[in-house]
Amino acid sequence: MTGVKNQKWWGWGDEGTAYSIDNKPKFKPFVRDVIGVDVDSVPVKKPRFEDLDVPACELGDALKQSLTDAVGAANLFVDDEVRVAHCYGKGVRDLLRLRQGILGRIPDVVVYPGTEDEVIAVADAVIAADGVLIPYGGGSNIVAALEAVPGETRQVVSVDMGRLNKVLEIDEVSGLARIQAGTYGPDMEKQLNARGWTLGHFPDSFIWSTVGGWVATRSSGNQSDKYGDIADVTRGMRVVMPSATAADRVPGQCTQVLHLNPLPSSSSGPSVREMLIGSEGRLGIITEVSMNVHRIAEAKEIQAYFFPNYDAGLEFAEAVCHSDASPVMLRVSDANETKFSMANASGGKSKISQYVNKAVQKIMVSKGWDLDQICMSFIGFEGSPANVRFQKGLVGQLVRKHGGMGVGKGPGSMYDEKKFDIPYIRDFLLDLGIPADVSETTSTWANAKTMHDETVKRAEEAFAKTGHKGFIMCHVSHSYHIGACQYFTFAIADSNPETVFESYDAVKQAVQQSFMDLKGTVSHHHGVGEEHSPWMAQDISEAGVHVQKVLFEGVDPGHNLNPGKIIHEGVPGVSSNSKQPE
Amino acid sequence: MTGVKNQKWWGWGDEGTAYSIDNKPKFKPFVRDVIGVDVDSVPVKKPRFEDLDVPACELGDALKQSLTDAVGAANLFVDDEVRVAHCYGKGVRDLLRLRQGILGRIPDVVVYPGTEDEVIAVADAVIAADGVLIPYGGGSNIVAALEAVPGETRQVVSVDMGRLNKVLEIDEVSGLARIQAGTYGPDMEKQLNARGWTLGHFPDSFIWSTVGGWVATRSSGNQSDKYGDIADVTRGMRVVMPSATAADRVPGQCTQVLHLNPLPSSSSGPSVREMLIGSEGRLGIITEVSMNVHRIAEAKEIQAYFFPNYDAGLEFAEAVCHSDASPVMLRVSDANETKFSMANASGGKSKISQYVNKAVQKIMVSKGWDLDQICMSFIGFEGSPANVRFQKGLVGQLVRKHGGMGVGKGPGSMYDEKKFDIPYIRDFLLDLGIPADVSETTSTWANAKTMHDETVKRAEEAFAKTGHKGFIMCHVSHSYHIGACQYFTFAIADSNPETVFESYDAVKQAVQQSFMDLKGTVSHHHGVGEEHSPWMAQDISEAGVHVQKVLFEGVDPGHNLNPGKIIHEGVPGVSSNSKQPE
Repeated sequence: MTGVKNQKWWGWGDEGTAYSIDNKPKFKPFVRDVIGVDVDSVPVKKPRFEDLDVPACELGDALKQSLTDAVGAANLFVDDEVRVAHCYGKGVRDLLRLRQGILGRIPDVVVYPGTEDEVIAVADAVIAADGVLIPYGGGSNIVAALEAVPGETRQVVSVDMGRLNKVLEIDEVSGLARIQAGTYGPDMEKQLNARGWTLGHFPDSFIWSTVGGWVATRSSGNQSDKYGDIADVTRGMRVVMPSATAADRVPGQCTQVLHLNPLPSSSSGPSVREMLIGSEGRLGIITEVSMNVHRIAEAKEIQAYFFPNYDAGLEFAEAVCHSDASPVMLRVSDANETKFSMANASGGKSKISQYVNKAVQKIMVSKGWDLDQICMSFIGFEGSPANVRFQKGLVGQLVRKHGGMGVGKGPGSMYDEKKFDIPYIRDFLLDLGIPADVSETTSTWANAKTMHDETVKRAEEAFAKTGHKGFIMCHVSHSYHIGACQYFTFAIADSNPETVFESYDAVKQAVQQSFMDLKGTVSHHHGVGEEHSPWMAQDISEAGVHVQKVLFEGVDPGHNLNPGKIIHEGVPGVSSNSKQPE
Repeated sequence: MTGVKNQKWWGWGDEGTAYSIDNKPKFKPFVRDVIGVDVDSVPVKKPRFEDLDVPACELGDALKQSLTDAVGAANLFVDDEVRVAHCYGKGVRDLLRLRQGILGRIPDVVVYPGTEDEVIAVADAVIAADGVLIPYGGGSNIVAALEAVPGETRQVVSVDMGRLNKVLEIDEVSGLARIQAGTYGPDMEKQLNARGWTLGHFPDSFIWSTVGGWVATRSSGNQSDKYGDIADVTRGMRVVMPSATAADRVPGQCTQVLHLNPLPSSSSGPSVREMLIGSEGRLGIITEVSMNVHRIAEAKEIQAYFFPNYDAGLEFAEAVCHSDASPVMLRVSDANETKFSMANASGGKSKISQYVNKAVQKIMVSKGWDLDQICMSFIGFEGSPANVRFQKGLVGQLVRKHGGMGVGKGPGSMYDEKKFDIPYIRDFLLDLGIPADVSETTSTWANAKTMHDETVKRAEEAFAKTGHKGFIMCHVSHSYHIGACQYFTFAIADSNPETVFESYDAVKQAVQQSFMDLKGTVSHHHGVGEEHSPWMAQDISEAGVHVQKVLFEGVDPGHNLNPGKIIHEGVPGVSSNSKQPE
């Protein structure tokens, strides 16, 4: 046993954990209302491993021997369970494919290196054999970054980094930690917290994602407004990459180690650090990173506010970013997401409904608010008690200026407790035949409202075109000086396995194309993978794609490193992996 | 006339402006004391243009015609004055070479495009003719980024961007301005200020540097602690770069335009934005950028503090960075630089000496301070009056905790008034036969004191080895969570033209090698150019250099774009351009 726990093969997270609607009396009517599905209808049957037709392992003896030499027999797996567990990430398309038994080009072998030297040996062996290397962290990627390209004829090796799971060093003077790339979020925080430190990086995927995965995909967490996106936080790294001579494939000479000292800033040319961040395995395997860490804050709180509508909420968010205030988190939900949050609140002890009770509603109505349009906002504060007080004062002034009202700390602490449970809801909905997905983009503040309204409109047009009921909601998830990330969640009630990919694609493509047409980006923090690659030329221009391409070709002329990700030969809207195999 | 004003060919800035020691009674004895030179000694004679032996222009008729078609005859110059004015930046080695009449491979022609289309036409013509393109901003580069490689046999074209000098657009909702790359600092601030905005980017070179130059070299300004380094501030850009087919050199098909929409953040793969920032002309010519701008702050002040020694000052700076405080500027000078500042203060109305008068000195002595070790610190605050008060309170607590004392706003306003005059002092010292230069690096806080002390020690050893008296001083110029930039200024009293390059090199190399041995970076905000390139493999590792190299080769296979910068074939310490021509 490797000691590394992977997610369940067919869905998010732990085998035993699931989303539950028990004690959420408002959820059933909400789902029936917005998407026309009866939660009590017979669920789609759960996928069974024995029903899968798992492609045979195509690993040759020579590479198997080299990989065994590299990691030891106990850390190399060719059995179907492990290979299937590593064949995709956890995008909704991945979950749909798994439920339909569509496995595609699954890895021939999964190896679990335990040291950087073992990663070097693995990479060297795979490049020497002209195989394909796919680094694997927590497996929570949702943009198809973890699968081989369809029809890949070479041997495919998934490199699970989960044994590299240590916080190696904390520099307590500088506030800097050296962490192995395969360390999962909770394990990392546990090791840091034990000495009084925190990374302050909490993406929704936190429980099932790794430090290296965050770096490889340009992750962002829900406190990144203060602590920084992963690109800000990551100061140094070590990466195993192809050597300049790798194209000759002489065993033992196929790799080199990139080493960037942890530094606060530098002007040593085009940033190599920023080239590795977001490289999704195409430039090498990240083995360790050095990251900003912080003393656990003395005081923390999340305050909830309401605004009469999303316009007011967006204007408030912009005002915060242009003020002296520096909250750790600034979320503003649109009206649909606010309704979803109310409906998803548990009945007995619902802190949200408690704070939007009849009395509060009466105040809102007295202010002339349309209850159908109200928007909830969570603002997080951290630091010394004096700083929390000061910041809260600054934010409070802006809330009043923008016609909002505060409802205290209750809803925020509920959000805080439940924030990592959200992904389980996708499996629950899939059981009901409702694929749900997320897409997020950034825009300037000037363009934020249009980005929201137009994207919602396009998604609704796409729902209509498919003939299935759908729902889309959104929140401001990350804020910056010039603009924000808006995070859309959408669901479409198509339970027909024959048409569901097409229905999903129609909506996903409408949403992404809206991002592009309005000069947003394909993704704020989920990366590109294979899923978003068709839009890259629209995002960073043809010349930008050319720049990325020469970088990938130059570093990896043999296309051994996770080929087909980020740069993609397809055309927008016709993503190759969305198609079922011929 | 192009309307673009270039710096004087032999030194910094305006022809009529110079550093003056009038009314600075302490400066003469200081210079005599620390470096053994009598300021009243007969100055080295000023260089005369008519003494120069200017290499002939090697521009062929065909390229001359294409360039004339591109920018118009009025914006193309082949005369010696303009070519010499564009042959180097303003590094001390550049100034020394100019004073000795060593011109090297000066440009054959200088063109001043007035639109992006003209930049495209220029770049297309140069690449089609297999010439060399060197983009030129304010000409204040100090790392040899503006000169052709020695012995360049192709036609060399300097592209002065000074006619592209407009703030094109201010997005007042988002806090975002679109600015042409050739806009000089003061001209840009004037255009922004007129509408109530500021970029908040004030490098020492501010008067004589351009927006595009800041981006191309990864600049940082003295308020970047709050407003961000140029890499943070620059959100979008347009860059004219070689097309994918440029290697074929078909006129009209040699370029493409990279266009990055201004976005607050993105996870669309390796950051192309961060590849262009710091690219020093090797990937293309930046024509316009979109940058964060801010409403001019309601309240601003710079407070001065003293600490008993540099150790205490560094510990204080670290504490500020790990606190809730967010000053706009945090400078801490070492004891030598504090003495220099005192000596450089003007006598009659010296605000510094006024604040470190006998009474203050008495307090310091009563605290047990060694007056020879005291260190001055400037901290800047901006925002609403309430925020300035709050921030000042947070900083004040830390000053007291680290045994410092405040002396009010006086010295800070003097610093603020005089901050852009510093570079003129180099020409003054050169007249006395004292080359002076600056080198800066970053380190973690844990490593900051060692970085300082070891670098000073190595410089002093190098002074001793050359047999000339020298002086080195330092300040913390930029602070970050994990560490800081320390900015060293050094001077060596070698007035002998036969040995001065060797003496300068010995010190410069000792300083840079100290940065490398202590895991710093070659430069925090001056870039790499040709001067720092020999240390790049030590800075970002061999693999990092390989990554930059494949990027440059891939984008510019013909080596037409400012070749020889950043990546260099030389070995550390043997920088090719430091040698006098054979």
